[in-house]
Amino acid sequence: MKNRQVIVRELPKDVLAPDHFEMREAAMPVPGEGEVLLRTILMSIDAANRSWMQGATYREAVKAGDVMATYAICEVVDSRSDRLSPGDIVAAESGWSDYVVRPARKVEKLPKVAPLSNLLSVYGIAGKTAFHGLIGVGRAMAGETVLVSAAAGSVGGYVGQIARALGCRVVGIAGGADKCAWVTDTLGFDACVDYRDPKFFRALRAACPDGVDVYFDNVGGAILETAMFVMNERGRVVCCGAISQYDSAAPTGPRNLPGLVVVKRLRMEGFIVMDFARDDAKALRALGQWVASGQIKVFEDIVEGLENAPSALIGLLAGDNRGKRMVRVAPDPG
Amino acid sequence: MKNRQVIVRELPKDVLAPDHFEMREAAMPVPGEGEVLLRTILMSIDAANRSWMQGATYREAVKAGDVMATYAICEVVDSRSDRLSPGDIVAAESGWSDYVVRPARKVEKLPKVAPLSNLLSVYGIAGKTAFHGLIGVGRAMAGETVLVSAAAGSVGGYVGQIARALGCRVVGIAGGADKCAWVTDTLGFDACVDYRDPKFFRALRAACPDGVDVYFDNVGGAILETAMFVMNERGRVVCCGAISQYDSAAPTGPRNLPGLVVVKRLRMEGFIVMDFARDDAKALRALGQWVASGQIKVFEDIVEGLENAPSALIGLLAGDNRGKRMVRVAPDPG
Repeated sequence: MKNRQVIVRELPKDVLAPDHFEMREAAMPVPGEGEVLLRTILMSIDAANRSWMQGATYREAVKAGDVMATYAICEVVDSRSDRLSPGDIVAAESGWSDYVVRPARKVEKLPKVAPLSNLLSVYGIAGKTAFHGLIGVGRAMAGETVLVSAAAGSVGGYVGQIARALGCRVVGIAGGADKCAWVTDTLGFDACVDYRDPKFFRALRAACPDGVDVYFDNVGGAILETAMFVMNERGRVVCCGAISQYDSAAPTGPRNLPGLVVVKRLRMEGFIVMDFARDDAKALRALGQWVASGQIKVFEDIVEGLENAPSALIGLLAGDNRGKRMVRVAPDPG
Repeated sequence: MKNRQVIVRELPKDVLAPDHFEMREAAMPVPGEGEVLLRTILMSIDAANRSWMQGATYREAVKAGDVMATYAICEVVDSRSDRLSPGDIVAAESGWSDYVVRPARKVEKLPKVAPLSNLLSVYGIAGKTAFHGLIGVGRAMAGETVLVSAAAGSVGGYVGQIARALGCRVVGIAGGADKCAWVTDTLGFDACVDYRDPKFFRALRAACPDGVDVYFDNVGGAILETAMFVMNERGRVVCCGAISQYDSAAPTGPRNLPGLVVVKRLRMEGFIVMDFARDDAKALRALGQWVASGQIKVFEDIVEGLENAPSALIGLLAGDNRGKRMVRVAPDPG
């Protein structure tokens, strides 16, 4: 049994690149009392991974020399805790590594859904983030217009599909004509606007003839600045992420903040999916019903092999994924 | 009877200056059916006046050639409406002018408080904005830390005094050591930090050892950016104004927005005092009690003479007022 790990060789100063990482072989870790040995099955690849390299946030910063951090779905291989047994499937704050040891009380036992990848997509952080952000923070109502950036991304695609299921008009923002076509034709958004289009603002206004009531912001920066201009009075900006700002040395703030927040009486509110854990059961029940009825389609973007994790993250930051990106490190247990 | 008016000769491109205005004499206006002739007594001088020159907001833009717009306390001189009689005191959206004609249904009859200036300060937009913003938007709770910028200004001074009355710890931000001393010694804030101090951030952190739960933002820009760093998780940023951005050709956005909104799960929310009109009676009752008990002190900064309105506004934008600034055009009626 080999234990491969991907290390952060050096922290990026601006754009993340392959040589910020290196792979090494480490000793197989041994669980102590109360700990479990986990085999990594699937690693979640998220824009937030990059932001962890910028400093401490809701979690510790990732530093040079660390095994790159990740949220992962794992199988328990060995247990020195009565909470968990070999064969259990768990979610863990883990690392880019074949195997890790974690305290049993720090991991969450999950149902054995098939395929397990759904635990990272529709029934995982992506689906729950979309649900809680749109409903718990954005308070989207039937008949309203919902705008969502990174619409082809893991969270954005569910935001739009949930909003459609709720009876909203849904407009996406994505990069490139192909992606926009995929968002409307495959995900079923009412419209999708290409932010790389030189006439982006005009196209956005045309796509939102009644203005925007809820803007679900995954990107920050210039797109947020533009979206502020189409917000309706008393609109809500759900602050979920700022992917445009993570991979850069010099972040830029939307120049119309806080001016338009005052003038339009907007509410901008940030959240982390864990804040709404009390409502997870509701989210999972509703998501399950929408999947069963066909109102939500599940798209997953699975990259094979631990060694491809750096390029999977770098590509995600450049916007080349459609649906929830993850890296498969080992097959689902039979 | 002369009717002097101050005209906007030319819209400012960046910093507002005296030669953007000129004074002229106009014909005495004559009220038509349903209208009233008003004598201006006091004109409110607000940072928002400058923002009206930047384009349409919650009201029409002020354009070159217009009589400069203002909110004013006036006496009814002549009435062709059964709603109002000569001698009534009203508030009106008016102009920098000795006399104006307005539709009777567009003005608000006010109680004959003595002095009338209190209708622009503690019992006017300043006091009500502070009350509704701090309580209705910010949901300040006893025991929390409230931070307020433009603390020596018309709204900021009441925000801090109300927050103290509610049992909060109150920290102000103002420009210059003298103003900061006035804010603590005279207004009774727990601390006040000088934003011109090169060690502003360090001083702010030291003044807020438990972080900030509610930041009442009157200024936007660099001070907002700095304040975001001391916010506590789930803090609230009450977006009341952005005075740092009005008098400039190139607004700058806080570079940590929306990043810190996400990470700290903040709520930023804008409002206009009129949004809370349903709660005005509560505000006036509470403010009256705090004034009677001495917990709120009323400071007014009254500039004499219509001809001094341009310099009064220019000075306000440079921060040279303490308390609510207004221009007296005529004495209170006997």
